[in-house]
Amino acid sequence: MRIARFSIDGNVAFGAVEGDKPDELVLDIIKGIPFAEHELSGTKVPLSKVRLLPPVLPNKVVAFGRNYAQHARELGNEVPDAPFAFFKPSTSVIGSGDAIQYPSFSADLHHEAELAVVIGRMCREVPRERVQDVIFGYTCANDVTARDVQKREKQWARAKGFDTSCPLGPWVETGLDLATASDLTVQLTVNGEQRQLGRTSEMIHSIEDLIVNITEAMTLLPGDVVLTGTPAGVGPLTVGDEVAVTIEGIGTLTNKVVKRG
Amino acid sequence: MRIARFSIDGNVAFGAVEGDKPDELVLDIIKGIPFAEHELSGTKVPLSKVRLLPPVLPNKVVAFGRNYAQHARELGNEVPDAPFAFFKPSTSVIGSGDAIQYPSFSADLHHEAELAVVIGRMCREVPRERVQDVIFGYTCANDVTARDVQKREKQWARAKGFDTSCPLGPWVETGLDLATASDLTVQLTVNGEQRQLGRTSEMIHSIEDLIVNITEAMTLLPGDVVLTGTPAGVGPLTVGDEVAVTIEGIGTLTNKVVKRG
Repeated sequence: MRIARFSIDGNVAFGAVEGDKPDELVLDIIKGIPFAEHELSGTKVPLSKVRLLPPVLPNKVVAFGRNYAQHARELGNEVPDAPFAFFKPSTSVIGSGDAIQYPSFSADLHHEAELAVVIGRMCREVPRERVQDVIFGYTCANDVTARDVQKREKQWARAKGFDTSCPLGPWVETGLDLATASDLTVQLTVNGEQRQLGRTSEMIHSIEDLIVNITEAMTLLPGDVVLTGTPAGVGPLTVGDEVAVTIEGIGTLTNKVVKRG
Repeated sequence: MRIARFSIDGNVAFGAVEGDKPDELVLDIIKGIPFAEHELSGTKVPLSKVRLLPPVLPNKVVAFGRNYAQHARELGNEVPDAPFAFFKPSTSVIGSGDAIQYPSFSADLHHEAELAVVIGRMCREVPRERVQDVIFGYTCANDVTARDVQKREKQWARAKGFDTSCPLGPWVETGLDLATASDLTVQLTVNGEQRQLGRTSEMIHSIEDLIVNITEAMTLLPGDVVLTGTPAGVGPLTVGDEVAVTIEGIGTLTNKVVKRG
């Protein structure tokens, strides 16, 4: 099931996305919340009539760096032996259709397309064989990065944590198993031109590795998001650009870059 | 005013701390929440009868690294020209009296005493002259760090973000102005022996600098916490230790180190 979060007439709701043609998608409004007991109401609205919101409101977004060898090398970095993680705060999260605000303190904003894992249960010290059980679903992410600031500042809170730096969406796909999620095409375009193309099978550390690694240290909460790294092809964004992340079997996350005003 | 958050008979409440002698402190229970309209109820309970909770539930904790020159040097690091920030997640926060769980993936846990600034208003791009207006108060923090993991992993999400790595408390002091907060003694003891001693006046980047720096990039929310760096004297903690951070004019944050079980 594809679960979207949206606003309509000033109310926030979750809905199951039905249909295949992008222009004819319909939302069946969900009663209850998707992480707990819920059912479809049968009340339907066209997706074109609502504003999509970030599909989850994460307490934290844990992101892994340099998890595709080609990407690590394209920035002149070594391929790390072990995974390493950083945080993007909840205040950085926006949905599909929302604007990425070009930060005032950067002159080199970059896109990074990533598969995002949405956590469904409070969990800590998850053994490898239970990773599937704590995953609610998957969505697309853009780990937008102020590359110049990232190079200057030893830790990346500002470079990767500024407001609007974490587009997530368009919805959460809950129907993929781990094996399927671990072999999907990840593609990113800027103004319709392809810039990044990779497969999640190219990850150095698998989705299981990443969840085991982070929950060894900390509790993940329902709605928390784990970003799995970006394939090669990262590059600049400028004001006016439309950037789109498409992941096979999930959907397309689209955002415009605007001047922060 | 000193505002504590506590649980009593299974309920969570805020209270104003009254009294001077540590053993005779009393909580006047607050009606409403401290960040908005509230008043003292006049109903009082001895502090010794309650369990203190973290005085705020931050959406995010933004921490600044190497903000005291002597501390930067003691670890063999350069003193940075510009501030740099990292995050500690909400899941790392504990209160005074709670246990620090020694993480399974580290063999070199360190204490770091810090002045914590508690944000009172949603804010972004705060000009220097408005910094005072966005501060709710101050509390003590211990930026507990898995030093070995910090050295191994390029970003510090695990080293400084594991569960229980962010003791905050014992309460928030709302009565200090910026000038006063910028010249306080910060002291840390382990089992009663002094290990760290510094003054907030020794910060390389002032409280104003730090708030301006981080809000240039991101929105802070009421209850968010900014950690201002640790003075020299950081060192190891072992299971069984009692570690206490005392900041002049605020109070003492005490935590025991236990085996993660």
